[in-house]
This record gives sequence, C-alpha cells and structure tokens, in this order.
Amino acid sequence: MARLIEVTDVILRDAHQSLMATRMAMEDMVPACEWLDNAGYWSLECWGGATFDSCIRFLNEDPWERLRTFKKLLPKTRTQMLLRGQNLLGYRHYEDGVVARFVEKAATNGMDVFRVFDALNDTRNLEAALKAVKKTGKHAQGTICYTVSPVHTVEKFIDMAQRLQDMEVDSICLKDMAALLKPQAAYDIVKGIKEKCGDQLLVHVHCHSTTGVTLVSLMKAIEAGADIVDTAISSLSLGPGHNPTESLVEMLEGTGYTTRLDLDLIYKAREYFAGIRPRYKEFLSEVTGVETEIFKSQIPGGMLSNMESQLKQQGQGDKMKEVMEEVPRVRKAAGYPPLVTPSSQIVGTQAVFNVMMGPYKVMTGEFSDLMLGYYGKTDDEKDPGVVAKAKEFGKKEEITCRPADLLKPEWGKLETDAAKLEGFNGADEDVLTFAMFPQVAPKFFKERSKGPLNLGKDPVVAKAATGGPAGGALTSAVEYEVSINGHKQKVTVAPA
Amino acid sequence: MARLIEVTDVILRDAHQSLMATRMAMEDMVPACEWLDNAGYWSLECWGGATFDSCIRFLNEDPWERLRTFKKLLPKTRTQMLLRGQNLLGYRHYEDGVVARFVEKAATNGMDVFRVFDALNDTRNLEAALKAVKKTGKHAQGTICYTVSPVHTVEKFIDMAQRLQDMEVDSICLKDMAALLKPQAAYDIVKGIKEKCGDQLLVHVHCHSTTGVTLVSLMKAIEAGADIVDTAISSLSLGPGHNPTESLVEMLEGTGYTTRLDLDLIYKAREYFAGIRPRYKEFLSEVTGVETEIFKSQIPGGMLSNMESQLKQQGQGDKMKEVMEEVPRVRKAAGYPPLVTPSSQIVGTQAVFNVMMGPYKVMTGEFSDLMLGYYGKTDDEKDPGVVAKAKEFGKKEEITCRPADLLKPEWGKLETDAAKLEGFNGADEDVLTFAMFPQVAPKFFKERSKGPLNLGKDPVVAKAATGGPAGGALTSAVEYEVSINGHKQKVTVAPA
Repeated sequence: MARLIEVTDVILRDAHQSLMATRMAMEDMVPACEWLDNAGYWSLECWGGATFDSCIRFLNEDPWERLRTFKKLLPKTRTQMLLRGQNLLGYRHYEDGVVARFVEKAATNGMDVFRVFDALNDTRNLEAALKAVKKTGKHAQGTICYTVSPVHTVEKFIDMAQRLQDMEVDSICLKDMAALLKPQAAYDIVKGIKEKCGDQLLVHVHCHSTTGVTLVSLMKAIEAGADIVDTAISSLSLGPGHNPTESLVEMLEGTGYTTRLDLDLIYKAREYFAGIRPRYKEFLSEVTGVETEIFKSQIPGGMLSNMESQLKQQGQGDKMKEVMEEVPRVRKAAGYPPLVTPSSQIVGTQAVFNVMMGPYKVMTGEFSDLMLGYYGKTDDEKDPGVVAKAKEFGKKEEITCRPADLLKPEWGKLETDAAKLEGFNGADEDVLTFAMFPQVAPKFFKERSKGPLNLGKDPVVAKAATGGPAGGALTSAVEYEVSINGHKQKVTVAPA
Repeated sequence: MARLIEVTDVILRDAHQSLMATRMAMEDMVPACEWLDNAGYWSLECWGGATFDSCIRFLNEDPWERLRTFKKLLPKTRTQMLLRGQNLLGYRHYEDGVVARFVEKAATNGMDVFRVFDALNDTRNLEAALKAVKKTGKHAQGTICYTVSPVHTVEKFIDMAQRLQDMEVDSICLKDMAALLKPQAAYDIVKGIKEKCGDQLLVHVHCHSTTGVTLVSLMKAIEAGADIVDTAISSLSLGPGHNPTESLVEMLEGTGYTTRLDLDLIYKAREYFAGIRPRYKEFLSEVTGVETEIFKSQIPGGMLSNMESQLKQQGQGDKMKEVMEEVPRVRKAAGYPPLVTPSSQIVGTQAVFNVMMGPYKVMTGEFSDLMLGYYGKTDDEKDPGVVAKAKEFGKKEEITCRPADLLKPEWGKLETDAAKLEGFNGADEDVLTFAMFPQVAPKFFKERSKGPLNLGKDPVVAKAATGGPAGGALTSAVEYEVSINGHKQKVTVAPA
C-alpha cells in the first residue's frame, strides 16, 4: 500500500500573488471552485498573505466577503490562509486582543486552516495567534521560515519545530518562500522533525519553484515522511510561483506514495486558468525560467529589484555590486534574519544606505527597530557596535521581551476611529480592515458600494492600478524614517 | 566522498533544436565556447539531430565546417552528436557502406561521442553505425528510446541494454525524448541495467523537461547509479527543452553526489545565451510551462499539433478527439513503436486517415512500410489483419530481415550524382550531405559561397525562412504515397 500524500493547492492565493501581483478578481476564481472542491485536496489556500491588501487597495473588493464566498463554494475542502503572526495581514505588531479578534472573525467567516509565521522565526510572535486559533477549534499550523545562513543548521529548524509542538500546533509548515530548500536539506529537516516530534505530528512543506530544484525537494521531503505538500495547478505555476500539481501527482506514480487527486478535474481547472492568465498580462511576472543565483547571493529576486530601483532613484545604479556584497554583512550584523517581507526590505534598504553614505552613517527607523528587538528575536547575536548606533539613531532602548508585551489594548480606539469613517459598516470585520490598513481602508469603505473591479477585464482600470503604491507579491510600501545628523526624514520605499 | 556525476550540456544542439526550431547561428554559439569548454562537462552535444538539416536548409551553413569549428573551439571537452542509426541524419535507410563512411568522416572532422538510436528500438538498425564508431576508436553510445505502452516493461529496456552491451557499446543512453520517464521508472531501469550489465558500463540519461517531473527522474537515476546526465544551461532550458544545468548542480549539494562543474563559467554562458534567445523570438517555442497531458494521451505535443493541422487542412478540425482516441489503436496495430520522428508522424497520419475515411480504407506508403517491417522490428506483434491490408496497399511482401540487408552498395552512384551538382566541392563530406538531403543539397552547394545566415540578426530573412518546409524540432516534411482504390497520390505532411 502506497502512503497517502495530501496536497494543498495555492492557486487561489499564493499562485496569483507570486505570478500576477495578487490581482486576480474573485469573479475569475469562482467558476473553478467546484472542480477544485471535488478534486480531493487536503486544503485550498485562498486567503491571507497579500490578498487582503490587494482586495481593498486595487480591487475594491471586501476581503471578508471573499472569504465567505470561498467558504460557500468550497464546502468539501478545508480553506486555508497565511497569517503573519502578530502582524496579522498588516505591517506592524498588533496587541493580543486585536490578534484574537481577527482570528475569531476569520474562523467565523469560514477559515479552517491558519498557517501562522513570523519573519524572524521568533515563536513568541506566533503565540497569540496560535492560541486564538486553538480557541476557535480550527487547525493551527505553526510555520518555520526556511533560510540559509551560517547559523541556520538543520538542528535549529528541528528545535523550532519542537517549540511549535510545545505550543500545541496541529501541524508544522516548513515554508520555503525563496526556493532555497535543496533536496538533502528538505530530507534532513523533515526526517529530523518526525524523529524528534513523533510521526503523528503532521509536516506540511511549502516551496516556491524559482530555483528549479524544489520539486526534487518535495520528493525528498515525502521520502522523509512529509504528510502534505503545496503545489499550484500548472497553468499558474513555475517561475517565482510553485511546482505544478499535475507534475507532483505524476511524479509519485509507481513510488511508495500516492495522492488522492482527480486529475480530470484538475485538467479542467488548468484549462480554465490558462484562459484567465493572459488577461492579466500587465501584472504577470516576467520570469518564467529558473533563477539559481540566489543560492550564491542569498538575495531573493524581489529584494534585488527593490534595491536596484532605490539605487537608480539616487542616480547610483552602478553601485549594485557593492550593495550585493553589503547585504550579507548587514544581515550578519542583524543576527541573520530570514530575508522575507518585511526583513528583506529592511536589510536591503540599510545595505543601500551603507553603500551610498558609509556603514551606518544613516539608519532607517525600521532597521534600528530591528536591531533593538522591536520586531522580535533573531537567531544569532547582533553586532554590539551596530546595536549601539541603533540606540543613538532610534533614541530607544534595546528590548528583549516579546514586542507585543509593550502594547496596550487598542480595540476600543480602533473601533472609535473606524466608526468615524464614511461607509464603515459597523462590523468587527470592518474595524479589523481599518486596523490593518489605516491608510487604505477609508477610501475603500467609501467606495465599497461600487462593487469589485476586475483588472483582467478592463485594461484602462488595470493601467491606472499598476501605478499604486504596493506591487503585489511585495505588498509592503514601507515608509522609513531616516535620521541624518539627528534630522528625521521620511523615505517611502515601494516595491519595483 | 560524494560520487562524481558527469554532465553533458545540450545547449549547442538539442536545447536550441527544442526551443528555437534548431535555428541558432554558429556565430551566436562561438562566443560561449571558451566558457563551456572550461566548465568541466563530460561532453558538449553540438551536432547531429536536426542541426545538419537546419544548417543547409535554413542557415546556408556547411554542417561539416560547423563540426570542425566546434572541435577547434572545444579542445578540452568531448564533442557529442545524435545519430539516427541506419538513417544517419536523413529520413531513409542507408546502405552500410554509406553509414560507415559518414561515421568515419564525422570522426575525422572532430566528433568524439556518437549517440546512436533507432526510432523502433530495433538494435539491428544500430549495428552498422556502432561498428563503424568502434572502428574509428571513438565513443560508441547505444541508445534506448524510452516509451510507455503495455509491452514496454522495465525488463524489456534492461534486455535491450544487454543486447547493446553485447554489441560492445562504450555506454548506454536512456533517451526520454517526450519527458515520459517518471522517477520510479528511471530508478528501476537504471538500477536494472547496472545489475544486469555490471556497474562499469556507463549509463547516460537524457530527459526533456516538458512534463515537469524529469529533474526528479534524474535524481532517481543518479541514486540508481547513473553516471552521466544531460542538461541545458538555464537560459535555454525548460518547456519542451531540458532541465537546467544550474538546478542539477545545486540539487546535488549535500547529497552523496556531486558534479565537477564550474558554476561561475556557466553563469557567464547563461547570461550570454539569455541575450541571444530573444533575437530568435520568431522561432521560439510558445510553451514555457509544463504539459502533463502526454501521460494520459501518450501523444507528444509536436505530434498533436501536426495532426491538428492535417485535420484543419481537410476542414475536419472537429475530429481531433476521435483522432486522439484512434492513435493508441493504430499504435497497437503497429506493434507499439515508440512515438518519435518518424514513427510519430507515420502513426499520427494514419490515425487521421482512419478517422476521416474509415479504418485502413486508405493507407500511407510509410505506414504500410512500417507494418511490413521496412523500418525494422517493433517490440510487439503487429495486427495480422492490418498487415494483410498493408501488403495490398503497398504491393510488397512482409520482411523480417534487417531492412538495410536489402540495400545494394550505393556510394558510387551517390558520388556520381553529387559530382554533377553546381558548387559540389569534391569531398566525401559533400557526397554525404547530398546523400542525406538530395532535395536540399543542390541549392545549398550552389549558394554556399555566399556564407552563413544569422536568422537571429536579420528579421527579414528570418521571416522568409519561417515559411520553409521543415519546422525545426520536427524536421521531417514527410512525403506520403497514399493509395486510394489502387490509385497512388502524393501527400506531403509538414510539421505545423
């Protein structure tokens, strides 16, 4: 008997986030839901990540309504979301009460599986969210962000899995957002987790396909005992996206592993999305092949293009090589954070400043916060000299507690502020939307009644929307506060 | 100590044959040769297949000169070619003397490794070529064309390897031209060959990447003992092409296997070819993602589009589904030939005729030849009823001998005929060019002195050249002789 490998398809969330800047209209997903729901997936990732931001920023669509619609259209299959721990779907730390409220509302509106991660792998930033998920009775998945550095050993990831198990997660996700997870590492980590945490703890592996090696990594993860893997139906796969679902199914034929997926239904969805994809050509990723340089540079592609555009804006496009050499030094000084939103932008921008003005002559507010522990704990010690400078620039002390412990209850104020907005519907869901996107929510509430846009249908609207501040896969147009000789300046860095 | 895995890069031959219709100009390959030659490859495939045809048909370039140039530019690395056994690089069976002469001349002009295959896996069609290679002292590689059918068991492929070993080949190639080789089959076949033929017999695995699973198959083949694998540098990889070289190298990190490739040099070549590729956009394959339907239909993509265009020409485009269902029946009747040039075209065209006019109401000359053994032996018994009809249509008897045994020495006549052509240079190489391409060679000899074309540089010439008869990856514009009620008609089927 072959061992059953379960599959999560990310076509309704991460696939279009990675390949078409998170722009796919709900209208374009609805027709495929019946096929997807009957195809035999363990879950369908369909919410969270950048979709919430994209819905209100670009699509004039209520993300909570999207969630309810998915729940209705996918009655047989678990819905799944990606949640940035204490940041929820926004870009700052929220107080525990807000985190709990968000999770409760997501569950009530139809969410089944919560994949919770923290950009620094600081498990304290996952505590509140995971506890809240457990309280709703839904599936709490604790996430390990995979990264490569001198301090990120196989043992370190296994230890993190054990800490997540102690937090009573229902499963562990090994999340490889940059396609850095090579086959042997995939095998060793999954094997190690299974040995240390027991075979009954579900291990779910998420890989992007950017480097071209990760379908092999999924094979090795499966051989090591992985229970669930993430893929995307082929017409929205590969490049910076994910490995094709059909290839995974076929790959396992004759091995000791099998899926329960119905390829006939998947082929229908494949054809359908193949027809949808070209309509979003303005948003499509230009990369369709593989990019293996990241193994050498350790710098994700999105971060590279970000830094390039920052340098060009300053007329210093020729400094790219120096910046690429500076990134590992900055990352080391910061204690080797994984390079994922927002740490990738924070480290990248600091590297740009270091090259342009000299090492740490200027420091962004975010970088000093990172150095002083306000994002949480990194896996390695930080450079004491740079920490000292961060104290000067940031005019703050270093903290070692869980960052959210410093936050005061804020729900009441959020409710009061939201209530003042035109178009606010009075529901907790709207308060949460406002809490996460205070700049964008007011306009959205006001215009919500006009109904959702389909940027794949109307090229004129699409054109206007490309000019927006957030670029999709990297949704974080981060405002930096830069101190130069004690004078603070605001610098906005938007993804290229 | 990790076991050394050797690599053949196909970027100078099969990569551009598969992705840009074999059109890459020699001029565009020359600048990369020094990097490639120093990168540590076991061999560089750079000649044979469709390149010979393309050189004289589209590029006004002498393929023999191309070979000599490669030999000069690649002094440290084996050159490698693909040879269609008794068909050489043409589309009919040649008498053994011509085969021997071709091999001898290829060796003299610089070829080191001869990968010899037969579309039907009839080893008798490899005998003359392999013997000739052995005589030159060069590397004789016997090839197994991988295919899937009810009769193609793992044992059958292993048996074929043993028969090739008996023919004293220097290595075995497992050739997966349609990306059908799944990981478990790759493992089982390579393991079986190593067990049966001894570990010292080199096994070389060639996969296309069309279905998205074959990098995993290469991993499994390596685990089973494969010695050499084929890849292509990433900027000319994937889609109907091959797995990316860089991904293979990175995939093996930390495993018990390693390559001796220098990625820094490969990145230089990658950047270089990334710049060349867009210049050939008129010839580029439209497929960049994966195509897994072939696992279900067993019909390679090129064959599908071929049949579709035949049906459309007849105003019967709506019959595609029937034709797709007819293909497996025709293939079964013919004894399950692998579907590769020319058998794919022969089976496909017969399926089209069967659907349009009723089963075997009409038979192409090629199909009756296939049924009567004139292409060689297939792996399964043929349908006796269809064989009987083939005798009627073809007005020939069935043969069971090696087809080339029926051929009389022909070198003298070829020499005499070639000598009459304007521009013939008097060399045996020119006689061979004429022998393989009697329709194309006269024009080429006449215009050769004008020098090679670069279709990537001159869009106007490129445009004109797209209209030519042979479409690149499928170079065989096959002339069929169709008998309808005893009346013979010529039908030319050119790849779509």
